[in-house]
Amino acid sequence: MAAVQLGVHMDIFEAIEKRYSARRFEDRQVEPEKLGRLLEAARLAPSAKNLQEWRFVVVQDEETRARLAEAAFQRFVGNAPTILVCCADSDGYVMRCGLPSYPIDVAIAIDHITLAAVALDLGTCWIGKFDPDKIRDILGIPERVHIVELLLVGYATDSPRPKNRLAVEEFVRYEHW
Amino acid sequence: MAAVQLGVHMDIFEAIEKRYSARRFEDRQVEPEKLGRLLEAARLAPSAKNLQEWRFVVVQDEETRARLAEAAFQRFVGNAPTILVCCADSDGYVMRCGLPSYPIDVAIAIDHITLAAVALDLGTCWIGKFDPDKIRDILGIPERVHIVELLLVGYATDSPRPKNRLAVEEFVRYEHW
Repeated sequence: MAAVQLGVHMDIFEAIEKRYSARRFEDRQVEPEKLGRLLEAARLAPSAKNLQEWRFVVVQDEETRARLAEAAFQRFVGNAPTILVCCADSDGYVMRCGLPSYPIDVAIAIDHITLAAVALDLGTCWIGKFDPDKIRDILGIPERVHIVELLLVGYATDSPRPKNRLAVEEFVRYEHW
Repeated sequence: MAAVQLGVHMDIFEAIEKRYSARRFEDRQVEPEKLGRLLEAARLAPSAKNLQEWRFVVVQDEETRARLAEAAFQRFVGNAPTILVCCADSDGYVMRCGLPSYPIDVAIAIDHITLAAVALDLGTCWIGKFDPDKIRDILGIPERVHIVELLLVGYATDSPRPKNRLAVEEFVRYEHW
């Protein structure tokens, strides 16, 4: 297994607990082997009807990152050495429950990446605040492709804050709403 | 850590590789401690603006499961000893990228559950094929709450098939679309 080859192990529960939204990063770039592990984690995600709508544009060029940061209204976005522009090439499939499959399927793939990143000592941050038209222009993304999220990736220099979350009893019910 | 208390460890990459969509299950129920670990994994998920829209109805009653299976058009759904009805109590927040946050946020929480489940020797299956109005009626879910997915949980008796996926080169581009 590639995980073993990289000599990396992390318990799934530990990864879930340690993941946080990183906003400050070292200058050094993510190693290609680690990037490959992240993309492999995304590759193995499940999706509706196995459609695998996820598409990623890996942006590491400094000038392009600065332009993406502008399109995301937040300068810190450009400080991440790698930005994954997370897209969906969807045929428009809507599940019987009434929701399009692509935002969910892309989210699963991104979540795999964020948890794998913890094991690789990398920080990540989901960014849903951006002007999709500007991102589309900057990267030449075709009209049919949806831009779902940006994911910042790099060696984080900030520290996790305690997670502020609802208690289980506040979001779980039994047998009936 | 609770993971240690349960004596459970699984490498994140191994969990990602081993997860599959389970459709056959043993009769025995998921232990409450394990269910608690799954819900804790969901609890720690990130969400847009930390909205935590996720809500879960845990259904274990046999008759209710049979009714959910009917609403999902597939008898095997009722054979899972536990069905998590994964909902979103959303205030309608739409991210600047143009997408509502709730399907993505609920998907992240569910993905956490599916990976934690692997470590607990449990199988899971995402179900997006269901009549939301019927599920709403069966469980008394209010109109404002979105029903996003069903997640089957139990001790799986089927075996994973090899994952049929795109190659990384087919879904990744560099610097530009």
